[in-house]
Amino acid sequence: MKIIVIGAAGTIGRAVVERLGRHHDIIGAGRGSGEEQVAIEDYASVQALFARTGPVDGVVVAAGGLHIGPFSEMTPEQFQVGLHSKLLGQVHVALAAQHALNDGGSITLTSGIDAYHAIRHGANAMTVNLGLEGFVAGAALDLQRGLRINVVAPTVLTESVPLYGHLFPGFEPADAKRVAMAYQRSVDGPETGKVYRVY
Amino acid sequence: MKIIVIGAAGTIGRAVVERLGRHHDIIGAGRGSGEEQVAIEDYASVQALFARTGPVDGVVVAAGGLHIGPFSEMTPEQFQVGLHSKLLGQVHVALAAQHALNDGGSITLTSGIDAYHAIRHGANAMTVNLGLEGFVAGAALDLQRGLRINVVAPTVLTESVPLYGHLFPGFEPADAKRVAMAYQRSVDGPETGKVYRVY
Repeated sequence: MKIIVIGAAGTIGRAVVERLGRHHDIIGAGRGSGEEQVAIEDYASVQALFARTGPVDGVVVAAGGLHIGPFSEMTPEQFQVGLHSKLLGQVHVALAAQHALNDGGSITLTSGIDAYHAIRHGANAMTVNLGLEGFVAGAALDLQRGLRINVVAPTVLTESVPLYGHLFPGFEPADAKRVAMAYQRSVDGPETGKVYRVY
Repeated sequence: MKIIVIGAAGTIGRAVVERLGRHHDIIGAGRGSGEEQVAIEDYASVQALFARTGPVDGVVVAAGGLHIGPFSEMTPEQFQVGLHSKLLGQVHVALAAQHALNDGGSITLTSGIDAYHAIRHGANAMTVNLGLEGFVAGAALDLQRGLRINVVAPTVLTESVPLYGHLFPGFEPADAKRVAMAYQRSVDGPETGKVYRVY
């Protein structure tokens, strides 16, 4: 199958490309690197990506920014970072993908463990990651032509502990390699509307 | 206590004003009616509301729009309706309220049963309503000065069945009067970071 991976140069993206690439043709996409350039915050950019690739069988998104910071100092602009990047950006991909995928194709998004397991300074992240789980549950019921949509909710990555570990005290990390297995379940499995929790 | 109710002219808002008004001083606010005008989508408008009222002990929001419609025809602009109105609008109130409330004051927002119980054509509503539950869980951990934040998740209102009942087939409705009790639990009770489900 032909699968687009958006965020292919990231820690999760590289592991997903490695794993899915064993059995599928991968088109790596990202903001500044990879075969294809795309900015998920910009719907026209997402539509242009699918126009260039032509019909595909799946799209994986492991991209999108969040704002982490104390709520007492948070501004609406900071809150909008996650809303427009990780939340609306991934929604853009799903909205466009449903018109670009072959019958039975899959959409796989990325949320995070903090959707259900609170972290300090996480108001924006928790809104976005839990919102994405609501989105997938809702969109799955409306998708046509046997299209499927799921979301992977990873814990903090072992590879990211030096950078982000302090935000997840006592949280058990997982290697990107292990997290990538959940993306394969979504792409190669039969399910839709599911959250694959890797923690 | 002095409590602002935003959306005071709505079906839930009127019942909340009636119930809380038995023991508290209520300032009714809304887009086009009530003592105070406010558009929650506009952060400056929310800040101006709190500047006019001066310090209060609680704010309740029962306001904000959503887009209900088939995902296969949904546009990014339609999806943004809920993101900017019911989600970001209520976040605006919480962000501004934390600087305007007296110590120990409360913020009470509104999500909906579809956060966890899927409805057809509900991708936008389910994103927004579940996102709000993540928001409240996260913000509650960061709030200072004993401030509290909760969210009420009502089922479809008995009063709204003629208009919206077709979206909730087999869902048991609740009177606005009963739903208003959950807002009182949030305002007068001791809890924070809670979802009060009325269904």
